[in-house]
Amino acid sequence: MAEAAPRDPWLLTPGPLTTAESTKRAMLHDWGSRDSAFIAMTARVRRRLVEIAGGGDLVAVPLQGSGTFVVEAALGTFVPRTGKVLILVNGAYGTRMARICQVMGRAHATLETPEDVPPAPAAVDSALAADPAITHVAVVHCETTSGILNPVCGVAEVVAARGRRLLLDAMSAFGALPVDMGTLGCDAVMASSNKCLEGVPGIGFIVARGAALAECEGNAHSVSLDLHDQWRYVERTGQWRFTAPTHVLAALDHALELFVAEGGVAGRGARYARNCRVLVDGLRALGFETLLPDHLQAPIIVTVRTPADPRFRFETFYEALSRRGYVIYPGKLTVADSFRVGCIGRLGEAEMRGALGAMRVTLEEMGVTDCGPVAVAGRTA
Amino acid sequence: MAEAAPRDPWLLTPGPLTTAESTKRAMLHDWGSRDSAFIAMTARVRRRLVEIAGGGDLVAVPLQGSGTFVVEAALGTFVPRTGKVLILVNGAYGTRMARICQVMGRAHATLETPEDVPPAPAAVDSALAADPAITHVAVVHCETTSGILNPVCGVAEVVAARGRRLLLDAMSAFGALPVDMGTLGCDAVMASSNKCLEGVPGIGFIVARGAALAECEGNAHSVSLDLHDQWRYVERTGQWRFTAPTHVLAALDHALELFVAEGGVAGRGARYARNCRVLVDGLRALGFETLLPDHLQAPIIVTVRTPADPRFRFETFYEALSRRGYVIYPGKLTVADSFRVGCIGRLGEAEMRGALGAMRVTLEEMGVTDCGPVAVAGRTA
Repeated sequence: MAEAAPRDPWLLTPGPLTTAESTKRAMLHDWGSRDSAFIAMTARVRRRLVEIAGGGDLVAVPLQGSGTFVVEAALGTFVPRTGKVLILVNGAYGTRMARICQVMGRAHATLETPEDVPPAPAAVDSALAADPAITHVAVVHCETTSGILNPVCGVAEVVAARGRRLLLDAMSAFGALPVDMGTLGCDAVMASSNKCLEGVPGIGFIVARGAALAECEGNAHSVSLDLHDQWRYVERTGQWRFTAPTHVLAALDHALELFVAEGGVAGRGARYARNCRVLVDGLRALGFETLLPDHLQAPIIVTVRTPADPRFRFETFYEALSRRGYVIYPGKLTVADSFRVGCIGRLGEAEMRGALGAMRVTLEEMGVTDCGPVAVAGRTA
Repeated sequence: MAEAAPRDPWLLTPGPLTTAESTKRAMLHDWGSRDSAFIAMTARVRRRLVEIAGGGDLVAVPLQGSGTFVVEAALGTFVPRTGKVLILVNGAYGTRMARICQVMGRAHATLETPEDVPPAPAAVDSALAADPAITHVAVVHCETTSGILNPVCGVAEVVAARGRRLLLDAMSAFGALPVDMGTLGCDAVMASSNKCLEGVPGIGFIVARGAALAECEGNAHSVSLDLHDQWRYVERTGQWRFTAPTHVLAALDHALELFVAEGGVAGRGARYARNCRVLVDGLRALGFETLLPDHLQAPIIVTVRTPADPRFRFETFYEALSRRGYVIYPGKLTVADSFRVGCIGRLGEAEMRGALGAMRVTLEEMGVTDCGPVAVAGRTA
């Protein structure tokens, strides 16, 4: 992917990501946020987001801010003040949803599993059977804490069978893993501009069933984060309620063109899957232990257990890789020391192999010969 | 200002604005949001924002989103759940603050004056004397609805004398009109990246007294909009709590360099004052009537009464000016038909004169010979 500026390091992170040079160049203009060119851009982006999620009666609503802003906005808008949401937690993003509900004052319960264990649809079913007050279930598609792929189809089935509503935080999966909202029967998916769509950060969005969103008037705890109001306004005027991040939208608009050109979800997902395969195989060849078995590993970000060798210091490793042009990511696990390496963004196999090569040289430099992790209770390193 | 791309129209709007070409080019890179280069950028921007507001014990806290997001965040963070805020309303942005408090469930009262009348400090004093439950006063520095300059110093004095706290929405004034927070004695000013600082939209911020912000833990109604939590996190880690709009911050960082090079508030304010003078004089020479007398006109945006001549149609006027390279702004007054012309952004006298020339040609084209407005009750056109 030669078009990215050679002097910027490759970002092997969960976002912000390495974007195409042409995506960044799309920001070299100024737009009036009430002008027809910008209105047309907003409409085009909304239409493309709907197409990615399966089309039909879906609507896309963009929101200023980071992914967390749109997750909070979706919980506040879709869960009525008298509702109750069951949050499936196996990482920091599930935990954050619970915290959001607590601060907003929305009734909620959590169903927790360890960070390397997906929620079992049968357990969700039991929780719903046991608590008829639960109106909604919220689940993270790919929990970036570990990189785990959660079983959203299985969860969606039991939620639908119990007559409850589903909210899907697809932040780091949307555009790379298929989400057919018609099949899932979920009310809304939340995602952002700067993950698998390969835009720059600053915009989150939902894609929602229009009929479900239409029921949400007056639910929100916040004016800024009211997705029903944001939707009604953009439908009526073609404009954003409050000043849009014009340049960020222009980058997303262009990034979506590149996305379509790459073959949409199938094409992008295939590239990321290849990146992930090369990365995981290469890490294991270097002696690292990855957290997840292959069948639970989403092709987004890979969690690696920190080597037990005292000569391995993450900060040194990170800085040396950064100097060599590859930025990796610290770990977020609560259960074990780890770091993370992403495989999304405008990156291909060449960059994955480049990163692995830089790791090999860096490990030699640090004098680390064994990358096996500290033994964990109940397992061996 | 020859560096702006010639093919983009000049934005004579309240923002997003015309920015310098070099500000946009600052976005041609990708940054890891946890990486040291980006942490240094965040620190530099925060330091410069504090300097603009008077230095001392002030702290700057950036927030993802538009200006409204940071206004809501400031109201939610600074006004305790048991507090009550008096909002001075003479336009849409004051009205919006009241709406925000209503949705958040914060007690509030309003003191309203017509859109072309500033609040009288004596009236604020009486309102505070009459209602000891009021803990905070919120006022808009320049109400973009009309372009009016509100008397923040006079208001600040009575608020301080009554022992209440002041929150200043300086969205469209910060960087162009002096705000010395020490003198004003206010707890926080709110502003954004894309107004007089001439960055691109996507970031709001507060500059606050550290001691005042330190008292605000647990006040906020929202996780995303909790400025106390955002502050604690950036102080501790140098990073943003949630994914930062990296490219927007890079643009702001560069825009602040240009701001300093122009001589800070004094230099920028002087340029905008010249722009405003040229614009107002030129509009009047064309026969237009501006809403405000000169002593109430902030050098930000000028409200113009719509000509009574039926041959004047705003949409036609707007489109013709846009084709000629000048984007103006619709009116927002509730009391009279109007439109608005901004004089901020990377624009100088040449662009102001260019816009006036384009208006003259367009009026001729439309066959409008008299730009006098419809007679208003109690006055003549």
